[in-house]
Amino acid sequence: MFSSASELKALSPWKERQTVVFMSDFGTADGAVSAMHGVADSVCHSLRLEDLTHEIPQFNIWEASYRLIQSLTYWAPGTVFVSVVDPGVGSDRESVAVLTASGHIIVTPDNGTLSHIAKKIGILERRRISETENRLKDSQRSYTFYGRDVYAYTGARLAAGIIDFDGTGPLLDPEPVMLEIEDPKIEKGRITGTIDVLDTRYGSLWTNIPDTLFFSDNISFGDSVYVTVSVKDRLVFGYKMKVCKNFSEVEVGEPLVYVNSLLNVGIALNQGNFAQTYSIGTGEDWKISIEKA
Amino acid sequence: MFSSASELKALSPWKERQTVVFMSDFGTADGAVSAMHGVADSVCHSLRLEDLTHEIPQFNIWEASYRLIQSLTYWAPGTVFVSVVDPGVGSDRESVAVLTASGHIIVTPDNGTLSHIAKKIGILERRRISETENRLKDSQRSYTFYGRDVYAYTGARLAAGIIDFDGTGPLLDPEPVMLEIEDPKIEKGRITGTIDVLDTRYGSLWTNIPDTLFFSDNISFGDSVYVTVSVKDRLVFGYKMKVCKNFSEVEVGEPLVYVNSLLNVGIALNQGNFAQTYSIGTGEDWKISIEKA
Amino acid sequence: MFSSASELKALSPWKERQTVVFMSDFGTADGAVSAMHGVADSVCHSLRLEDLTHEIPQFNIWEASYRLIQSLTYWAPGTVFVSVVDPGVGSDRESVAVLTASGHIIVTPDNGTLSHIAKKIGILERRRISETENRLKDSQRSYTFYGRDVYAYTGARLAAGIIDFDGTGPLLDPEPVMLEIEDPKIEKGRITGTIDVLDTRYGSLWTNIPDTLFFSDNISFGDSVYVTVSVKDRLVFGYKMKVCKNFSEVEVGEPLVYVNSLLNVGIALNQGNFAQTYSIGTGEDWKISIEKA
Repeated sequence: MFSSASELKALSPWKERQTVVFMSDFGTADGAVSAMHGVADSVCHSLRLEDLTHEIPQFNIWEASYRLIQSLTYWAPGTVFVSVVDPGVGSDRESVAVLTASGHIIVTPDNGTLSHIAKKIGILERRRISETENRLKDSQRSYTFYGRDVYAYTGARLAAGIIDFDGTGPLLDPEPVMLEIEDPKIEKGRITGTIDVLDTRYGSLWTNIPDTLFFSDNISFGDSVYVTVSVKDRLVFGYKMKVCKNFSEVEVGEPLVYVNSLLNVGIALNQGNFAQTYSIGTGEDWKISIEKA
Repeated sequence: MFSSASELKALSPWKERQTVVFMSDFGTADGAVSAMHGVADSVCHSLRLEDLTHEIPQFNIWEASYRLIQSLTYWAPGTVFVSVVDPGVGSDRESVAVLTASGHIIVTPDNGTLSHIAKKIGILERRRISETENRLKDSQRSYTFYGRDVYAYTGARLAAGIIDFDGTGPLLDPEPVMLEIEDPKIEKGRITGTIDVLDTRYGSLWTNIPDTLFFSDNISFGDSVYVTVSVKDRLVFGYKMKVCKNFSEVEVGEPLVYVNSLLNVGIALNQGNFAQTYSIGTGEDWKISIEKA
Repeated sequence: MFSSASELKALSPWKERQTVVFMSDFGTADGAVSAMHGVADSVCHSLRLEDLTHEIPQFNIWEASYRLIQSLTYWAPGTVFVSVVDPGVGSDRESVAVLTASGHIIVTPDNGTLSHIAKKIGILERRRISETENRLKDSQRSYTFYGRDVYAYTGARLAAGIIDFDGTGPLLDPEPVMLEIEDPKIEKGRITGTIDVLDTRYGSLWTNIPDTLFFSDNISFGDSVYVTVSVKDRLVFGYKMKVCKNFSEVEVGEPLVYVNSLLNVGIALNQGNFAQTYSIGTGEDWKISIEKA
C-alpha cells in the first residue's frame, strides 16, 4: 500500500506493467469491446490487454463498483483499469483517472463506480480527464462511446508511458462520487448486514459482513447459527445452518454459512442455488441477520 | 488508406503487427474457439491473439459483415482478421483472403461476410485459399471445422510472416460475394433508411443513415423530429423526439435520436430498450423515416 | 507423444512455452476469472494467459473432461492447463498436477476431470499439490476459491519455471479418479455408442464413435444409414439419413451423419438444431445405433 500520490508517482509502476484491464456493461456480442482493445493496441502494441468482465448488468454502477473491489488487488500494482458503466454518458458526470492506495490506476466515469475502492482501499489522487489532449484522433463527432474514444485511449496512453498521470488533466479533490455503502453491525451477539451481490452463477449470497467481525464474538467454524433474510423489513427466510470451512461439510442441497473469496460471510446451498431457491435479491433493501443458535 | 495492393504488399504491415483477431458464431461455451487460438499459437508463439466476438447469431452472415465494419478500423493496419460464420462449410463457397484498402487482411469464407467492408472501405485484392499448402497438418479427415484447420492456420501464418499474401493461393477478381446493402435517401426533407442492427444489450436501433446525410439539410442537434418505423410497409412506430448529442438530454425512459459510435443515426430510449419496448427488428424489411417536426 | 515422465521433464517445454490456459464453470459475469488471470500475471508478467471456456455447466465434471480432450492437443506441448470445476472444493478430493503423454501439464481438482485425457492420451505422472509451498501468499483464510489461491498460482509458477514439476508436491500413482467412459461397439454391421456431448450452439449430437470404427466395415460417404436414438432403452428417434462429408450435401433442415472436428461421428440438421428439434440429451443413458440402410 502506498501512503501518498507523490511516492506512487515517483515509482510509476504502470510504465513497467503496461497492462490495461477493461470492464463494462457492453456484453461481448458486438464489436464494442474489440474496438476498445483495438484502440489500446494502436496506442501501444506491447500492452497486455485483459478483461475483468463485460457482463455488468446495464447501468448497474453498484455492481461495477463491487467487481472492481473483487478483482483489482489480485492484479499487480501499476495495472491500469478502464471501467465503462456509464448511464450518464455525455452528461455532467466527470470523466476521471484516479490513483489508488494499492498502486493501481482506474479510468472511469465518476458516477459511483469508485465507491468500494475509495472506502476499502483509498484514493490518493483524482484528476478530471481533459478531452482536449486525451481523446482519440478524429473522434470528435462521436458523443456516445467514451469507452473507446476517451477511456480506452487514455488508459492505454498511461500504461504505455506516453502521458504521465498528471497529463490526464486538472487535479480534483480525491473524494469521488460515492454510493451509500452500509457497515455491518454487531449487537448483543446478533450480527446484521446487507446482501451486496450474488456469486452470479451459483446463486450464493455475498454479504458485507467480514470474517473478522463474524468471528470476533462467540461464533466459530462448526457452530450452528440462525440466519434470517428480510427485504424492507419483511422476513423472507429464516433457518438454522452450520458455519463451514467447506461446502462439502453439509449434504448436497443443504444450506451453510461460509467465508467467501473476499473474506466476507456468504450463504449458500451446497451444489444448489440459494438466491433462486428462496427468491432473494441484492442491494441495500436486502438485510441479513445471524446469531448463534 | 492504401490505393493499391502492390503498395500495401511492399509494406506488409502484418509481419510487424503479428496480430490475429478472431470472429465466429461458435459461442465460447465449448472448446472450439480455444482450439483456433491453440492452432495460431502453435504456428507462432509471439502472435497477439484477440477476439472480436464469437456470439454472432448462428449462420447470420449479415451481422458478421456488420461487426467487421464496426471494429476493423479501430485496429492498426496490418491486423489479420479470421472470420468464421460459415453456414455453407464444405460447399462450393470459396475460402478467401483479402487485402482491404485500410491495410488489413481478412481470412473468411466468401459468403457475404465481406459486404460492408467491400462497400465502405474497399478490397484491393482477393485470393482463393489453396488448401494444399494452407491446411493444418494431419487435419485432412476433418471436413467440418475450416475455422480451425484452414482459417486460423492461414491467418496465423500470414501474421507470422511464414507465408506472403500471394502464398495464400490463386488470384481472384477483387469483388467478393455481396449481400444487398441499401443506401439511405433524402427527399423533400424526409430521410429514409433501414435498421441495420441493434446495439445488442441496450436495444437501440442502428440505422444506415450517416450523420453527414442527416445533418446535410435542415436538421440540427436540439431539433425535434418525427420518426416512423415500418416493417414491410406496415407502420409499427411513430413519435416525435429530440435530436440529442447525449442520452442525458432527455428524461430516463424517453426516446431520442442520436449519432452512434459509427457516426450513423441511432434511435434509443434513455436507459431503456427501444427495440424490446416497441418489438422492432432489423434487416432490409425494417424501414425508418425521419423528418423535421 | 512422450513415453516417459523423465523424458518430458528433461525437456520441460512449459518453461519455454510460458502459457496458461484456464477453464472453469465460473462464467465471466463477475471478477473470478479476472482474479485468476491477475494472480498468474503477478507471478510472472511475461506469461501468455488464455481461456478454454468458463461456461462449463456448473459442477459438470463430465463436460469439463470432454472440453479438455476437445482442445488440449491443439495447443503446443508445454502449455499448462488450469481447470476449476470443483463441486467438492475443500473436501477430501485431491488437488493434483499431471503430465500428459502429449507433453502438457494440467492442474485440477482430481474429481474425474482427467478421465478423457487419461483414457485417450495417457497420464505419465501425477502429483498432489502441496499447499504449504503452492498457495498464494496471505490466502490462508480463504477456503473456497482454490482456483485463484492454489490452481492459478501453481499453474503460473510452473509455466514461469519458478517451480519444477516435482515441486508441485508428492508423487501419486498416475491413475486419476475416472468417470466411466463407454466404448462403442460394432456387431453384425450395427454400430452402437453413446451421445457424449452437444455441439452447444448448433445442437448437433457428438457421439463416442470414431470415424475409423464407423468406416471399418461396409459404410462409406454417400451411403444411407438408419439411425436410432434411445434413452434408457426407450426409442426417441429413428430415421434414414445420408453419410456426408459436408452439411451442404443435404437440404437445409435435413438430417445427416458426418464426421465432427474430433473425428467422431456426429448427427446434425443442416442449419438446424437436432438436439432441440428432437429433445435429445447427452450422457451414458443416451444411446445411438447406426446401420447401413
